[in-house]
Amino acid sequence: MTSSLLNPMVAVHRVAASGPDDVAGLERLVETGTLDPSGIVAILGKTEGNGCVNDFSRGFATQSLKLFLHRHIGPDAAASVCLVMSGGTEGALSPHWIVFERKHVKEFGQGPALAMGSAITPPLAAEHLGRRAQVEMVAEGVRLAMDRARIADPAEVHFVQIKCPLLTAARVTEADGRGFATATRDTLKSMGLSRGASALGVAVALGELQMDAIAEVAIGADMGLWSGRASTSAGIEIMGHEILVLGMSGEWSGPLRIDHAVMTDAADIEPVRAALGRLGFDGPGQLGAEERARVRAVLAKAEASRTGTVRGMRHTMLDDSDISATRHARAFVAGVLAGTVGLTDLFVSGGAEHQGPDGGGPVAIIAERG
Amino acid sequence: MTSSLLNPMVAVHRVAASGPDDVAGLERLVETGTLDPSGIVAILGKTEGNGCVNDFSRGFATQSLKLFLHRHIGPDAAASVCLVMSGGTEGALSPHWIVFERKHVKEFGQGPALAMGSAITPPLAAEHLGRRAQVEMVAEGVRLAMDRARIADPAEVHFVQIKCPLLTAARVTEADGRGFATATRDTLKSMGLSRGASALGVAVALGELQMDAIAEVAIGADMGLWSGRASTSAGIEIMGHEILVLGMSGEWSGPLRIDHAVMTDAADIEPVRAALGRLGFDGPGQLGAEERARVRAVLAKAEASRTGTVRGMRHTMLDDSDISATRHARAFVAGVLAGTVGLTDLFVSGGAEHQGPDGGGPVAIIAERG
Amino acid sequence: MTSSLLNPMVAVHRVAASGPDDVAGLERLVETGTLDPSGIVAILGKTEGNGCVNDFSRGFATQSLKLFLHRHIGPDAAASVCLVMSGGTEGALSPHWIVFERKHVKEFGQGPALAMGSAITPPLAAEHLGRRAQVEMVAEGVRLAMDRARIADPAEVHFVQIKCPLLTAARVTEADGRGFATATRDTLKSMGLSRGASALGVAVALGELQMDAIAEVAIGADMGLWSGRASTSAGIEIMGHEILVLGMSGEWSGPLRIDHAVMTDAADIEPVRAALGRLGFDGPGQLGAEERARVRAVLAKAEASRTGTVRGMRHTMLDDSDISATRHARAFVAGVLAGTVGLTDLFVSGGAEHQGPDGGGPVAIIAERG
Amino acid sequence: MTSSLLNPMVAVHRVAASGPDDVAGLERLVETGTLDPSGIVAILGKTEGNGCVNDFSRGFATQSLKLFLHRHIGPDAAASVCLVMSGGTEGALSPHWIVFERKHVKEFGQGPALAMGSAITPPLAAEHLGRRAQVEMVAEGVRLAMDRARIADPAEVHFVQIKCPLLTAARVTEADGRGFATATRDTLKSMGLSRGASALGVAVALGELQMDAIAEVAIGADMGLWSGRASTSAGIEIMGHEILVLGMSGEWSGPLRIDHAVMTDAADIEPVRAALGRLGFDGPGQLGAEERARVRAVLAKAEASRTGTVRGMRHTMLDDSDISATRHARAFVAGVLAGTVGLTDLFVSGGAEHQGPDGGGPVAIIAERG
Repeated sequence: MTSSLLNPMVAVHRVAASGPDDVAGLERLVETGTLDPSGIVAILGKTEGNGCVNDFSRGFATQSLKLFLHRHIGPDAAASVCLVMSGGTEGALSPHWIVFERKHVKEFGQGPALAMGSAITPPLAAEHLGRRAQVEMVAEGVRLAMDRARIADPAEVHFVQIKCPLLTAARVTEADGRGFATATRDTLKSMGLSRGASALGVAVALGELQMDAIAEVAIGADMGLWSGRASTSAGIEIMGHEILVLGMSGEWSGPLRIDHAVMTDAADIEPVRAALGRLGFDGPGQLGAEERARVRAVLAKAEASRTGTVRGMRHTMLDDSDISATRHARAFVAGVLAGTVGLTDLFVSGGAEHQGPDGGGPVAIIAERG
Repeated sequence: MTSSLLNPMVAVHRVAASGPDDVAGLERLVETGTLDPSGIVAILGKTEGNGCVNDFSRGFATQSLKLFLHRHIGPDAAASVCLVMSGGTEGALSPHWIVFERKHVKEFGQGPALAMGSAITPPLAAEHLGRRAQVEMVAEGVRLAMDRARIADPAEVHFVQIKCPLLTAARVTEADGRGFATATRDTLKSMGLSRGASALGVAVALGELQMDAIAEVAIGADMGLWSGRASTSAGIEIMGHEILVLGMSGEWSGPLRIDHAVMTDAADIEPVRAALGRLGFDGPGQLGAEERARVRAVLAKAEASRTGTVRGMRHTMLDDSDISATRHARAFVAGVLAGTVGLTDLFVSGGAEHQGPDGGGPVAIIAERG
Repeated sequence: MTSSLLNPMVAVHRVAASGPDDVAGLERLVETGTLDPSGIVAILGKTEGNGCVNDFSRGFATQSLKLFLHRHIGPDAAASVCLVMSGGTEGALSPHWIVFERKHVKEFGQGPALAMGSAITPPLAAEHLGRRAQVEMVAEGVRLAMDRARIADPAEVHFVQIKCPLLTAARVTEADGRGFATATRDTLKSMGLSRGASALGVAVALGELQMDAIAEVAIGADMGLWSGRASTSAGIEIMGHEILVLGMSGEWSGPLRIDHAVMTDAADIEPVRAALGRLGFDGPGQLGAEERARVRAVLAKAEASRTGTVRGMRHTMLDDSDISATRHARAFVAGVLAGTVGLTDLFVSGGAEHQGPDGGGPVAIIAERG
Repeated sequence: MTSSLLNPMVAVHRVAASGPDDVAGLERLVETGTLDPSGIVAILGKTEGNGCVNDFSRGFATQSLKLFLHRHIGPDAAASVCLVMSGGTEGALSPHWIVFERKHVKEFGQGPALAMGSAITPPLAAEHLGRRAQVEMVAEGVRLAMDRARIADPAEVHFVQIKCPLLTAARVTEADGRGFATATRDTLKSMGLSRGASALGVAVALGELQMDAIAEVAIGADMGLWSGRASTSAGIEIMGHEILVLGMSGEWSGPLRIDHAVMTDAADIEPVRAALGRLGFDGPGQLGAEERARVRAVLAKAEASRTGTVRGMRHTMLDDSDISATRHARAFVAGVLAGTVGLTDLFVSGGAEHQGPDGGGPVAIIAERG
């Protein structure tokens, strides 16, 4: 199906989901020939659970997507597809899938295009989780995925999505048995540490931070260290890291481009407006219907600032014992983004340790050329 | 203290609150002579409860504000101050008070200025709540408050805040005893009916709707009927209506102006941008620091659309049994507004029956002249 | 596999689940020969979602159980297994499966034993949901299931678990198209009506109520009408009713017995103690470890009283906008039952319209002979 | 009003509250002469907030009770009344006040009676919070309160209610300024440490633990160390400790007695039944109406076990990101207690660090002689 005479291109399909198990929209894409299941590299899902510990919408979605993939490409090929489920469609956010498909086209497009590359790291020893060893392993994996995406210049990378491991009681015990202490024995805390160390690995690979500048105690603690292009989530089902690099490359074709912004606080929309401008959206206010049709995906991280304030004014997200701060943050940042982009099926996810500055976060936009 | 040679003006003080009982900021305004307690006409409070049935932050704030007013102007004068507490500071919303003070100034300002007028209606018989009789009573009250605000043209009214009654079991029984059936026996439902009928009363007074066009069965049901300038909330402590009209009048002085917009859905920021433009804020993106300093108050209503969609995309607010839809809607709309205004101490409140179109809502902005 | 020389018996397996997709415990029962998958008649699951609208733990569990059944008995046989998932393991409740297996044994046991029978009704026309026609259809289905359970005397029926349909927008529209109006257009409300009408159908079949005594307007409204042995839940995936009758019959063998109680309010444990006594548990306090080992399943319904009080004291369940009243009720009633039974893997479910008196509910206990 | 010829006695008034500001029931007791406000030593309030960080029902109740006390005994006397508000009336729990009044009676009662004594410790330096110095300070305070209660034998003490301080950012900074590091910089965590250290102080005073056995690192960590009679809560408004000791003493008169039990897990009702037996309630099941009338107060602590299990079965309280584990635990334990006591206005509170074994907790019962 592929040929060395053809150029690779990325197709991005954003598909509404009526529930965590609703793959009907994906089936329709396959039936109409819009999507070739054998080209699927990754599926991101914004599912409607609480995005916290007891969010079963993620597992339900994963199981449903796997059944979909099994039907079309069999279990073996399905196993290599990266599935990243992010729970939480607070506010007017709309549940959806984002499918990244690798296609091939004959003609070169005009200039560089959206490129992607993936990599899977070896399993991480439990005692390395949340420590410098994890940072280094991820940095190496990101470099490999960049190679595969044929992106040489780190400045051309705009988003790195990583699924990273977490600790379970069994894994902690196993490390104990080998004589090694893990960074934490708390499962929930291990998720934050793993997300944070993975994000720092991205920062190292992209030259945002030097490895030397990252002390072990700074992981999960010094929020002054961050990547503006990392988005990481922890999953119980893996022991290594699944890495998806998105960027621009002259060796890829097709109509899509990607750019990114870093919000410095929850209301900081100007960098996003600037990124939209670089992608050719240059109106003063919200994108109009035609412009919105050109947007393929908006990927963002959101988190309540640890300072308890936004622009000097107190927020109450961290003190609300009825609603998790991550849910508040997603709803609000979704509104900030929707006000400018005009869409509500935005991939806004939480848990932004070392992913953008405290209270802010990275935002990537994939859009068709104007 | 007042004199016929002086012109009335409205001062609007927006003050941060560290909790529902934090009146320290108000005390400081009094101490420094910035606020004369005897001129207080109304205090709006955005408090940090859930904004739903068991939100004690509102009652706690009301009790605390009353103690503040008692200390400064005594119980009798305090009783005439309109206190409207709106619970819910979801997302990055910041708890705050908005004090409306009537002052007098010697010189005329340049052209019309922010004007206000209040009225209190007679008690509403329980059987009239949620029915045309309530609509008519509120319409009459709004006209009286307009007179007092010296606003003759309804087009000059930009926001009407109303506190309206609700039914309790005792009030239903009392009506029963007189041989009258109430519109509902459900206390919670009576709140929505009362808010809705009050909003329709505003629409009638402002000429947005004709009284003839409002069938009794349409109240609380036909969301195609609405006012673009009403904001209503129900409170157990009153039997009549407390009405505060805000608009522009040539007979008032001072630096403040008001304008309003109607959002047609939860992400519809363009009408707000237009209103900001009319108020002299004409940049392309978010207000900058100097512009933000000119903004005195942003008052908005937010509610999840009953259709279950925003711009054709499904939202999950009405299906979330863990978080009330009103909390989702406030968080999201707050983000939409903050993205443009750049502030987080916004008075975004829920319960928007007949206040703007389904899923949208009115927004008023009070700002200093540029 | 069966023979007319053998007697039927019911085996009940209570199996812990570490998550909605954890069927490992069931697999172990199969591997060890304890459970023959071809004999499975029904699986009840107490899953750990919120038990409300957006509880995906139920769908996730159902999908996982179906995959389990497909592996062992194929899709066709799997389709006839009744799967009833009840979300909500509040308080110390423990997620678990209860498998009802039909076995055959050579020797008669001593006297009557636990019997079961199932039936599936024809599809219910949407306009009949929540109306007398549904009551009658269910009553007929219960009688058929009793026949199959070889229980002639309604007094020998102790629990009837029913899965009933609900309305969707599409089903309402379809009825509209045929010229029929449904009892409600509100999906959530249709669930309560369907549960309630189904429970009344049980009451009619068991002679607890006469069909004549049930006015159409009383369905979902007059909580003085109820069955003390019905447990119903609504599911979107079916259009008819899946009915499981549990009772005592001399034509069944085996060591298990069943009895039931009706709690008249949320703290009313004495009827449960009496039922335990009839089952041979006659100690003064909580069951001891040996007695607990004899208990196979405890099935109960719980709901907050609409009066807002328990024994004259106010409860706050209906006013809590942060936690659904059904979650409060399950947690509390679970505690009441656990205090006496000493177990926490109890099948306590909510949504108890016409299932026991207001604020109370039916409780069935299946236990081995002493 | 008092005289050396008279004997002290404790009157305990349990009064329903329709909201956090409802003191009408207390006013009625005063009006009818049942309660002499000048004798009030402490008021415990079970209020209907979430019992977590943003529970404003506690502050609202405290402000309302202070206004009540100011009206009757003036601000100075009011300041010495111990007010302990515990948020959270989950399940069927009913909001109420428990007033402890010191009275005097002429005749000696028959034998020992309920005795109480209070003490206030000096302010605790911030750096001592959660450390052995706090344990020692509380132990000394408990001994002083025992003296005042005229209880010499620690075995006669059945419940010690303590209100203890917490750290704020300002207090941490103040300690920093003096060159001392606090045990934590996390406000929320400081509440648990303070509750835990205070409970250990009770254990030391009552001889349940030796001071030597309590290592500094064990505070908040080693849940094998606990008091079976401590109930502690942290409040921002105090810097020292308010201590209320309840027990039996031959030097007190009146009809009331107190006893206590320690539940070893969330379902462990047998020790409570034993305590009820010692108080003369000796029936096999739930207390009947006459017996319930003799119960004045039930005071209990509840908390989810850190092991994640109850009697070997998994619970989901710690994994529920929608409902705080403390809310789950209160609802469930309330049910366990209500099943036996038959009442729902029980003072069940959370945050049980070092107060009973992990997952269990102390229960005290005050009742009239039979």
